[in-house]
Amino acid sequence: MAAFRANGIVTLTTDFGLREPFVGIMKGVMLGHASQLRFIDMAHDVSAFQPVEAGFWLAGALRYFPSGTVHVAVVDPGVGTPRALLAVLANEQVLLAPDNGLLAALAIRRKIDRIIRIDLARLVQFGVSDVSATFHGRDVFAPLAAAIASGRCDPMDLGEEVQSLDLSGWPATSTRADGGIAGVVVAVDRFGNLISNIEATAVVALATPTVHIGGLRLPLRRTYGDAAAGEYLGLINSFEVLEVARSRGNAAAGLNLAVGAPISAVPTVPGAQFRRS
Amino acid sequence: MAAFRANGIVTLTTDFGLREPFVGIMKGVMLGHASQLRFIDMAHDVSAFQPVEAGFWLAGALRYFPSGTVHVAVVDPGVGTPRALLAVLANEQVLLAPDNGLLAALAIRRKIDRIIRIDLARLVQFGVSDVSATFHGRDVFAPLAAAIASGRCDPMDLGEEVQSLDLSGWPATSTRADGGIAGVVVAVDRFGNLISNIEATAVVALATPTVHIGGLRLPLRRTYGDAAAGEYLGLINSFEVLEVARSRGNAAAGLNLAVGAPISAVPTVPGAQFRRS
Amino acid sequence: MAAFRANGIVTLTTDFGLREPFVGIMKGVMLGHASQLRFIDMAHDVSAFQPVEAGFWLAGALRYFPSGTVHVAVVDPGVGTPRALLAVLANEQVLLAPDNGLLAALAIRRKIDRIIRIDLARLVQFGVSDVSATFHGRDVFAPLAAAIASGRCDPMDLGEEVQSLDLSGWPATSTRADGGIAGVVVAVDRFGNLISNIEATAVVALATPTVHIGGLRLPLRRTYGDAAAGEYLGLINSFEVLEVARSRGNAAAGLNLAVGAPISAVPTVPGAQFRRS
Repeated sequence: MAAFRANGIVTLTTDFGLREPFVGIMKGVMLGHASQLRFIDMAHDVSAFQPVEAGFWLAGALRYFPSGTVHVAVVDPGVGTPRALLAVLANEQVLLAPDNGLLAALAIRRKIDRIIRIDLARLVQFGVSDVSATFHGRDVFAPLAAAIASGRCDPMDLGEEVQSLDLSGWPATSTRADGGIAGVVVAVDRFGNLISNIEATAVVALATPTVHIGGLRLPLRRTYGDAAAGEYLGLINSFEVLEVARSRGNAAAGLNLAVGAPISAVPTVPGAQFRRS
Repeated sequence: MAAFRANGIVTLTTDFGLREPFVGIMKGVMLGHASQLRFIDMAHDVSAFQPVEAGFWLAGALRYFPSGTVHVAVVDPGVGTPRALLAVLANEQVLLAPDNGLLAALAIRRKIDRIIRIDLARLVQFGVSDVSATFHGRDVFAPLAAAIASGRCDPMDLGEEVQSLDLSGWPATSTRADGGIAGVVVAVDRFGNLISNIEATAVVALATPTVHIGGLRLPLRRTYGDAAAGEYLGLINSFEVLEVARSRGNAAAGLNLAVGAPISAVPTVPGAQFRRS
Repeated sequence: MAAFRANGIVTLTTDFGLREPFVGIMKGVMLGHASQLRFIDMAHDVSAFQPVEAGFWLAGALRYFPSGTVHVAVVDPGVGTPRALLAVLANEQVLLAPDNGLLAALAIRRKIDRIIRIDLARLVQFGVSDVSATFHGRDVFAPLAAAIASGRCDPMDLGEEVQSLDLSGWPATSTRADGGIAGVVVAVDRFGNLISNIEATAVVALATPTVHIGGLRLPLRRTYGDAAAGEYLGLINSFEVLEVARSRGNAAAGLNLAVGAPISAVPTVPGAQFRRS
């Protein structure tokens, strides 16, 4: 079983943006509880009401943080209604998030060691009281994260361990008749890159794969600069999934595609000769 | 009289955005004066030239920060022209801002303990010199905040105490003939929620209030998820004012309303029976 | 020769935005290598693929940071293709950036003390290994910056010293027949101010200069508030170059101008009488 020893670092992933002081207020609350904490802003402009996208980024980021880090993820359209809050142990780090699909990418793509369903009644001792109906980032997550990140609270003591969480947030891929993999675009980054749910390992197992998207058949390249400016290409991105990009351009705008668009990795004819059938 | 003991934390509220290094430069200047300071970004994308909005967020955020925090607010279309700079003591914290309405929401909605009109001539000893005409955030506010936040400077020594500040930044509400309260939208957040100047305490004093905005009559709910997706609702938000939202949607876009739009909280007929008249 | 003693502060300038966790991941990697580092976000929304703009902001910001600061600049459309990475010493600070024009403004407008062409083979000892083709900010710049900023690595040891870098990033100005200076807009800030490559020193040397842009002839003012609301004006901005602004408005939108637009500072007729010719 993985150990957790708090290192005083808290990352924040929200859909709050930085136009208003929602994130700043969460930090203020945490500093009030534990003045030495340090904060890393992971992402605050994930699409509002899209826990899936937030979860994808967080799952990809986890391995790059030191053991003992606490990650708070608040993309929570159900705030104030009955929905579980989870504390999850993975990579010797703790993630706090609502159980709304946000943790699905982590559970499916990586590995979760433990899942605790948080019992709000146990949190009073850590400063969680006077909870508003609309801002649990401030009233629940912040004091909770401060208690865990400062070592005052063992996340295992926050509630009952459970064996499952909401996996609806990460769509499944399927195998095509031609042996390829069919998936969907799960996120579009600020460069307009179309990021899919098709794993790198599945793509590289195909015989010289091409990428099908929006009626186009694109080559699989190593990096953006391997295509001429303006050309579309497929590549395995730094989060280890298949992505479609436009060299020095914006693929999403150029192809008029968005989250949910179908995308496939397909073996080419020479490779197809090696298929059993 | 409230005491102030610097805790080394400086928050920043500006209309500078994060696309250019204006905020980073302010932090660089502060670190040059006091290397151990810690910074919290409160909001940097408040509408350009809208001190009122910045002041609303800051007034709402103050209570969530520890005593001894210094808040710097630079939304300052009058930079370089004669306008007073203020240091204000509230909640055992210090706020630095131009006297252009930015502090009105704090003065009216919360409580200010002291107002000091800053005398620039006294600031030379704290590194304020060579002041540009266009970037006082860097040349005045940053060295000043560093001096206060590191405990090198008592804000009471920065100038004369005055008894008033520019209150034009926070519009007044009025009482309607039907006993309701008429106000306006003072901010629209990134979710499209329409935030008013009508205080929670005034709304809950009404008999089963409904919310009138843009020709609609909306129920008052507890939280966003208490309405079906797409429905409009009124609620008391986490800053304790009346807000109009659209469940899992954008009220400002859906209703085509913006800052300045009229909004009212109105008692319903059963409640009206209890009115005197 | 300027000395460099690391102070533990790392600034980040990227075109990654804050919508995805690219910047957060870089910080996570750095904290994994050196847990006490402190980070300042300089700018993360510089125009994608525009190293020039990033370099302009960075050159302007440098003097406001303490000696010993490490600045990481990743605006790198050529990531994964052969292009040099540079470590540059200036102002007793270190800058890490690709050699793609990003450092041109610094080299031309300010002063660079030393240029080291980084030898990736020497970086293994500092944790640079398993380098992806698409995210060198995470895989190269972050561990490298952590090593330098924590004092574990002398930047002079990272590769061979070279005498030049890519200067294409900063356009040259020219002298007009009338004695004025012709330049171009090199950046547009979030307020819509049109920022040129014409140096303040060159402008003030002209006899009562006027500013020519988009068919208009504008007066040179001291600050934004010196013009009536809605009026266009020229001024020397806080980065010490000529800028065209619109008082309480957006000059770029109002004049329909963008990066690349011609702009000139021109002596007026009375001043012209003093010209030699």
